[in-house]
Amino acid sequence: MTEVATARRSRITPEREAELYEAVLELLREVGYDALTMDAVAARTRSSKATLYRQWGGKAELVAKAVRHGKPGSSAGEVDTGTLRGDLHALTLRSDDCEMEQNSALMRGLAMAVHGNPDLLKAFKEHLVEPEMAEFGRVLQRAVGRGEIRADSPAMSFVPHMMIGAFAARTMLDEQPPTQAFLLSYIDAVVLPALGAPTT
Amino acid sequence: MTEVATARRSRITPEREAELYEAVLELLREVGYDALTMDAVAARTRSSKATLYRQWGGKAELVAKAVRHGKPGSSAGEVDTGTLRGDLHALTLRSDDCEMEQNSALMRGLAMAVHGNPDLLKAFKEHLVEPEMAEFGRVLQRAVGRGEIRADSPAMSFVPHMMIGAFAARTMLDEQPPTQAFLLSYIDAVVLPALGAPTT
Repeated sequence: MTEVATARRSRITPEREAELYEAVLELLREVGYDALTMDAVAARTRSSKATLYRQWGGKAELVAKAVRHGKPGSSAGEVDTGTLRGDLHALTLRSDDCEMEQNSALMRGLAMAVHGNPDLLKAFKEHLVEPEMAEFGRVLQRAVGRGEIRADSPAMSFVPHMMIGAFAARTMLDEQPPTQAFLLSYIDAVVLPALGAPTT
Repeated sequence: MTEVATARRSRITPEREAELYEAVLELLREVGYDALTMDAVAARTRSSKATLYRQWGGKAELVAKAVRHGKPGSSAGEVDTGTLRGDLHALTLRSDDCEMEQNSALMRGLAMAVHGNPDLLKAFKEHLVEPEMAEFGRVLQRAVGRGEIRADSPAMSFVPHMMIGAFAARTMLDEQPPTQAFLLSYIDAVVLPALGAPTT
């Protein structure tokens, strides 16, 4: 970034920046990446397109930044209930149904765009997928330590696919967003038995 | 449809129609629904936009028709190997890796569009999801009949989510399309144990 650009950038307050990113995420959920236009962002945030382009360069950069900004990460602190079932349920219950619906819409809105946009894919993975997966990893390691599951369980490496997959498949198959109730039954019926872990 | 439109419609041969639908599916896989334009379809199929609009009315109708036309259905005949594992493997091996990559790209290209386009959602479900799911249902029922799995296994109703979910999550998590090898290990590591079925 040139010095001029840096100087210009500082004209936007962090609050205003956060507002802009939230508006971009809203639009992504509503219409998806391809249909999201800088005109729509400008209209919704009552800013000028010139400002948006000067500040972010273009749609791809703006969207990647918004994704990076959007997720607060695991701010709720470590989950540790003493059982794998308890931990997986607790992780699920940290997002209410409204947040799950929003995340599911965001995933859908980005699914096509992350292909062929490496920067956006990186932002998507680093900020939406990996923090979640790291938490599942910690919870599974503790279950291995307690002897609830075997370290060499073949299902272990598929836990992310089971969880993210159920999340993604729910909307596609049942025409409704994933909910806490759906994911809790899925954990009990599929994830725990696949891992050979106690289901009660 | 008016009589005039019917008469006009008949000017296109079934071969030409099939060619057009295949081009639409190709474009859907490459750029997704939102970025697919009638201009691009016209260019790729060397037809005029006027013809496309006269014939199909618009993009939504053309894409829904292409989806309905695309999948040949379960032309490969009933699968019945005598075990659940054998049947699930056989169903997986009916699509080669290239077809799986194509189906995964098509799913991605349609994921956003099916929301808010009921006709497209209907075409997507009836022609891409349900025939596959009906086959899984038949295979599971036979496994219940043979006593391999219990009829009241809680995992039973989640088999579509496990399979479609793994398919969808593979690209998102591992940046590679689902392959036969991936799905066969997933069936052995996740689907069969979740159902309480023999894994060898």
